[in-house]
Amino acid sequence: MKIAILGGTGNEGFGLGFRWAAAGHEIIIGSRSAERGAAAAAEMVEKLEAAGKQTAVSGTDNLTASQQADLVVLSVPYAAQAATLADVKEALDGKILLTVVAPLGPSKKARVWRPPSGLSAAEEAQAQVGESCTVVAAFQNVSAHHLTDLDHAIECDVLVCGDKGDTKQTVILLCQDAGMRGVNAGALQNATVAEGLTAVLIAINITNKIKDAGIRITGLS
Amino acid sequence: MKIAILGGTGNEGFGLGFRWAAAGHEIIIGSRSAERGAAAAAEMVEKLEAAGKQTAVSGTDNLTASQQADLVVLSVPYAAQAATLADVKEALDGKILLTVVAPLGPSKKARVWRPPSGLSAAEEAQAQVGESCTVVAAFQNVSAHHLTDLDHAIECDVLVCGDKGDTKQTVILLCQDAGMRGVNAGALQNATVAEGLTAVLIAINITNKIKDAGIRITGLS
Repeated sequence: MKIAILGGTGNEGFGLGFRWAAAGHEIIIGSRSAERGAAAAAEMVEKLEAAGKQTAVSGTDNLTASQQADLVVLSVPYAAQAATLADVKEALDGKILLTVVAPLGPSKKARVWRPPSGLSAAEEAQAQVGESCTVVAAFQNVSAHHLTDLDHAIECDVLVCGDKGDTKQTVILLCQDAGMRGVNAGALQNATVAEGLTAVLIAINITNKIKDAGIRITGLS
Repeated sequence: MKIAILGGTGNEGFGLGFRWAAAGHEIIIGSRSAERGAAAAAEMVEKLEAAGKQTAVSGTDNLTASQQADLVVLSVPYAAQAATLADVKEALDGKILLTVVAPLGPSKKARVWRPPSGLSAAEEAQAQVGESCTVVAAFQNVSAHHLTDLDHAIECDVLVCGDKGDTKQTVILLCQDAGMRGVNAGALQNATVAEGLTAVLIAINITNKIKDAGIRITGLS
């Protein structure tokens, strides 16, 4: 699959892209600046070579990356979400937009914060890109901390929220390719829980002086 | 500890009360009707005797139960929360109010629903009872399904949210007494995540045809 990662220069997007590249996907790292996208791609190629993996990775600006991809990952801070989507909207028709955005408040990041609309960031993204693009929310709770270490098992399930079953299934397969279990967590509006859970995990990290609290869903066979 | 359980005739409150009684606490089951409270207490005593446990259990109306207790558990449907608290408010001064309420929408229970205020039900409870009573939210995600079976290990951590550390510690000990791990999940406003997670777990139950999906926090030592 050709996967564009908008904001792929950041830790979360870079780490997921690295894991997907190692699993055989073609990765296009997008950035506001084509130069920074290319630089991150060079860094990812170097890490993949060191790990003995194939290196189908390139870097460019966000719009070009979106045009070239089958599936587009949104991995920017919430404050940059609307502007980034406005830049690439024309290239999203008929594609899945996988958002990993977890909005955090301007201060007190260990306290749940929601966009002023009261909606989840994922629902705001769906409203902005329109119905020709299907938004799926996932990876909100995955710490970037160990993503670039392929030998490190990520102890976190991925809540996958969206309004269309087939697109969620595609994302659940991408969870597997990144070494995690994706769990169908219901409608896109449920993404507000996955987004808010990030602040809860930050609170747990702080209280327990750890770096990568995560969640597992129990009761599944 | 003397624990009143408002709505202790329902499955969740009854199940928690049963586990706490078996662990040695004194339980006062509250109900809108003193008769129904007493009947539930008789049923709990019978179950405790069958399990070979002590039976310090009584039942009465919600206000009397609150007056007699050191700690008061709110375990009613969200729709009954405000009326129940209005009935018992005078008896809560200086006590902990442990709320297990998880508001669910009138339909589509597998979709996150929030009170019209936009706050968590737990924050609404705190606003109603005033500062002389400390609200702690916990057990929102614990399925009532196996609580009355002491041999059944509950595969679910308990997110404990509140604004005062010492009261959260008291509740974390009550989690242990009920056979679960309590995890300090931050401020009371974070209860909105625990409350919303209940709808996510219902969605997971439905999709996977199971009855007691739960969560574990990973990364803790």
